[in-house]
Amino acid sequence: MSVRLQIEATRGSARTGKLITPHGEVETPVFMPVGTLGSVKGVSQDVLEELGVEILLGNTYHLFLRPGVETVRKMGGLHRFMSWDRAILTDSGGFQVFSLTDLRKVSDEGVAFRSHLDGSPHFLSPEKAMEVQIGLGADIIMAFDECTEYPADAARARASMELTVRWAGRCKNYFEEHKHEVPWARTESAELRSAGRTNASAPTRADQTQALFGIVQGGTDRELRRESADRTIDIGFPGYAIGGLSVGEPRDLTRDIVLSTLEHLPSDQPRYLMGVGTPEEIAHYAQSGIDMMDCVLPTRAARHGLLFTSEGKLSIKQARYAQDESALDPACDCRVCQRYSRAYLRHLYAANELLAQVLNTVHNLHYYMATMRTVRTWIRAGRAPATFVPRK
Amino acid sequence: MSVRLQIEATRGSARTGKLITPHGEVETPVFMPVGTLGSVKGVSQDVLEELGVEILLGNTYHLFLRPGVETVRKMGGLHRFMSWDRAILTDSGGFQVFSLTDLRKVSDEGVAFRSHLDGSPHFLSPEKAMEVQIGLGADIIMAFDECTEYPADAARARASMELTVRWAGRCKNYFEEHKHEVPWARTESAELRSAGRTNASAPTRADQTQALFGIVQGGTDRELRRESADRTIDIGFPGYAIGGLSVGEPRDLTRDIVLSTLEHLPSDQPRYLMGVGTPEEIAHYAQSGIDMMDCVLPTRAARHGLLFTSEGKLSIKQARYAQDESALDPACDCRVCQRYSRAYLRHLYAANELLAQVLNTVHNLHYYMATMRTVRTWIRAGRAPATFVPRK
Repeated sequence: MSVRLQIEATRGSARTGKLITPHGEVETPVFMPVGTLGSVKGVSQDVLEELGVEILLGNTYHLFLRPGVETVRKMGGLHRFMSWDRAILTDSGGFQVFSLTDLRKVSDEGVAFRSHLDGSPHFLSPEKAMEVQIGLGADIIMAFDECTEYPADAARARASMELTVRWAGRCKNYFEEHKHEVPWARTESAELRSAGRTNASAPTRADQTQALFGIVQGGTDRELRRESADRTIDIGFPGYAIGGLSVGEPRDLTRDIVLSTLEHLPSDQPRYLMGVGTPEEIAHYAQSGIDMMDCVLPTRAARHGLLFTSEGKLSIKQARYAQDESALDPACDCRVCQRYSRAYLRHLYAANELLAQVLNTVHNLHYYMATMRTVRTWIRAGRAPATFVPRK
Repeated sequence: MSVRLQIEATRGSARTGKLITPHGEVETPVFMPVGTLGSVKGVSQDVLEELGVEILLGNTYHLFLRPGVETVRKMGGLHRFMSWDRAILTDSGGFQVFSLTDLRKVSDEGVAFRSHLDGSPHFLSPEKAMEVQIGLGADIIMAFDECTEYPADAARARASMELTVRWAGRCKNYFEEHKHEVPWARTESAELRSAGRTNASAPTRADQTQALFGIVQGGTDRELRRESADRTIDIGFPGYAIGGLSVGEPRDLTRDIVLSTLEHLPSDQPRYLMGVGTPEEIAHYAQSGIDMMDCVLPTRAARHGLLFTSEGKLSIKQARYAQDESALDPACDCRVCQRYSRAYLRHLYAANELLAQVLNTVHNLHYYMATMRTVRTWIRAGRAPATFVPRK
């Protein structure tokens, strides 16, 4: 098995356990910080480890352009390139490519697009997206899907879903033929050979491959989502994602679609909700049965001075904090709240100091990690989240 | 005594020992990283501690504008504001103010200038510079001097030196009258009172004051430098700086003036060379009898991808490093060289990732700290620096 979910406790449809990957175990439900270009902006890998981050997300589109898959492959894959020995998931690049509204052209074959950096032409197909993601070597890679825009009429949502299902089949075919090309398998095999340990009886990373997850689309139509789930499950993947949400639709609708789609996903396999969300949302969805989530919110908001605390959101740029000696979040035990005052953090932000972005990001990530630790504890204890949800 | 130098070993005119300050001991000769606005750009205080930084430099001009001396004073001084319990030195603001060529007007009274941020009018005099530096509360503060430009003719260099000497006397007068207003003395007294420990017999920080150092000017004229040294020593300070160098003059001339000026400074007091320099220069001047130095070079160069290594300078932006798996400096034991490859650092820099600036700065600071540790060891051991000076 490449990646599997080991469920240890359940409460209703929620569950907690471990995702076993070639690069370590990940406690679930898990929030995955986004490290777009092989770095969580401003935070060094040892600090991520200290924060308890067990899995990171990398963006295929961005890494494809810089430093390019050949460089990462030659360096032994993304783990080795960025010196991160814990788990990584890469998205398929689809979401970013579809965001290039004026720079891309979709056909059944794939998507022609121009780089947002220099306008250079590129093409991503299901096969190419697999080739790139195998070269990057994340533990979990994602099928190349079309992220249906919101709003989309019934015909458009169906056509888009059908395209994603066809592409999912092509992704699986390519992946099954090429999955042994993952760079860390080759690297480790070579290392083991040179060390004379090729016959060691214990399974090694070299025996393992990546896991390819399917993605459910279908816009905001519950029936289309059900059909997308059924047809993706028929193709067969070791995990399933719910994609195409948080793209502008009302939050109630997001919630309705997530909950209805969850009912159609296998209960013994990982369930990943893409691109969500606020602390309240990740706590809510984890308690609804989602195992994995990712979002740029904690890191991007931090860089804009928006901080999540046990007392609600706080905009550190405000002049009211200029002489506030209290900790950012008096209830927080992160290294930022333990050492610095709001006055200092406000000064760093106002003076455009690099350290503002570094410290704000560390705090927000800690808040997200702590939120998920709390939710896992609740699920394990069978308790209701009476007092948790932070004030908005 | 506020600050004193405890010399432990000498070799020629070089010496190694400890600078005893109200905020801890500083091994000398020491290189002081620059934390312009109360932060060494991109590096958190715990990492500075780990790097072995025992004293930081803050820029009075910048802190005067942001967050302003009143804020820092109310927060208990710069140490408490930035959560840094080790020693701090502030410059007088003179160097920055004189750099505002088109925005300032000098008179015997002081300097009228406009903020580089918003054009707002301000005035710094010797008295005001003391008031501000007492409010900031660094352990060592500097007399308000005129940094003579290069080149300057004989009349101009003399007039400028005379102005600096007059201002030095006014600085000392103001400082002696107001030195007990330093915010940490007040804060600690209050804390001790509330803890009922006012009669404790051990001396506390509240019994101590800042130390005001004088600055020798005189341009590039050895005789004028001697006169400046003599007259500044006549006023009487617990330490002396050599200012007005590294302002565009040839490096040989810098060296000549530093060495000749050193002969006129008291051998039992700290000697501080301002604004110097490269790794080669700090090693050289430490071995010539300088005890303290500061420079933006390691931190600013890092942010521009210029890294100091045991094999010489390295520009990490170069494409030749794109697939270079070796450490930045194979001989370096810093946390950056121990974990990341040149290929990764080059990618971070090329992609304009925040982490590039963070990691590059940590490495360069480590290199400077390690350089000074090596020099101190040589002086203590009485050995010559046969193999040290890095290739350029």
